[in-house]
Amino acid sequence: MAPRKGQEIFSATLALLAEKGYEGLTVEGVAERSGVNKTTIYRWWPSKAALLAAALAESEVLALDPPDTGSLRGDLESLVAQIAALLTRPPAADVAVAALGAAVHHPELAEVARRFFADRLAGEKRVFERAGRRGELVDGADPMLVMDLLAGAVWLRTVFRGLPLGEDFAAEAVRAVLDGTARRPAEPA
Amino acid sequence: MAPRKGQEIFSATLALLAEKGYEGLTVEGVAERSGVNKTTIYRWWPSKAALLAAALAESEVLALDPPDTGSLRGDLESLVAQIAALLTRPPAADVAVAALGAAVHHPELAEVARRFFADRLAGEKRVFERAGRRGELVDGADPMLVMDLLAGAVWLRTVFRGLPLGEDFAAEAVRAVLDGTARRPAEPA
Repeated sequence: MAPRKGQEIFSATLALLAEKGYEGLTVEGVAERSGVNKTTIYRWWPSKAALLAAALAESEVLALDPPDTGSLRGDLESLVAQIAALLTRPPAADVAVAALGAAVHHPELAEVARRFFADRLAGEKRVFERAGRRGELVDGADPMLVMDLLAGAVWLRTVFRGLPLGEDFAAEAVRAVLDGTARRPAEPA
Repeated sequence: MAPRKGQEIFSATLALLAEKGYEGLTVEGVAERSGVNKTTIYRWWPSKAALLAAALAESEVLALDPPDTGSLRGDLESLVAQIAALLTRPPAADVAVAALGAAVHHPELAEVARRFFADRLAGEKRVFERAGRRGELVDGADPMLVMDLLAGAVWLRTVFRGLPLGEDFAAEAVRAVLDGTARRPAEPA
């Protein structure tokens, strides 16, 4: 739920976060940039942490488009490519990296990050439910683990290593997690 | 290379980083806490970024013990468990999370993070070289990708989701990456 001009408020919130960091984010600043009365914003969100949580969850800037390509491999490659775009292409990248970086430093944002990733996983689980119905997953495969491996690899490679993702990154990461990287014992001929 | 009392300087650097963040880290503070003259510290490291890079690379607090268990699976499980401990057990966790979080916000630390992960990978590659000689890896398996998947998953689960790692996390994450999570086509009987 959001007031009229919700997207303007969310965009202003994320833009200020990216420009000034969480320390520099204020409800006053959001009001000024979005042209919405400060009192209105406070009526909906009692704190800047609550406002940021809503913006991360509902802004179109960070929206993922849950894929349905017909195969688990295709869906996961699409998700990895979307996560990669979020973390590397402005303006989403500036926002996503600033927000997640801030979550590390500000205990009151830990809950915001948790909720953000829980929301994402709820959408991603549909990919795994369809894959399960198609018999594409081994028994006991854990969607959260698969997403942590894939999304974590994108974060580590782009943000911490500061390396570009090669064109084949999504396909190779998904191949590793779906097909494994260990050589199988030779099958009897 | 480091002056006498190098470990004291590194410990003081990392402790101050964890307590006060990168903004609050100063060479003066490190000198005071380690009992080493400020001029000596500056002679070795011209900036606090350089000092932090050296501390991350050489402090015993963050040291990984390159495993050699006799199998790729055992070595990777040991590495995941060590990375998990680094990111969840104080005092290493406070330092590691503060340092990596700071790298997101401070462009001059991006190079520090890059070097830290490159150093780690150089050590981890020995695990993959031995695995290659034992024939445990599929052709073309990429050590950096495997480590990004595994270390990235630990980061995402513990720092961003704020969830504890179950007892089986290392074994399950390694199983996913080595054996895959996709069901294989039934083999002809």
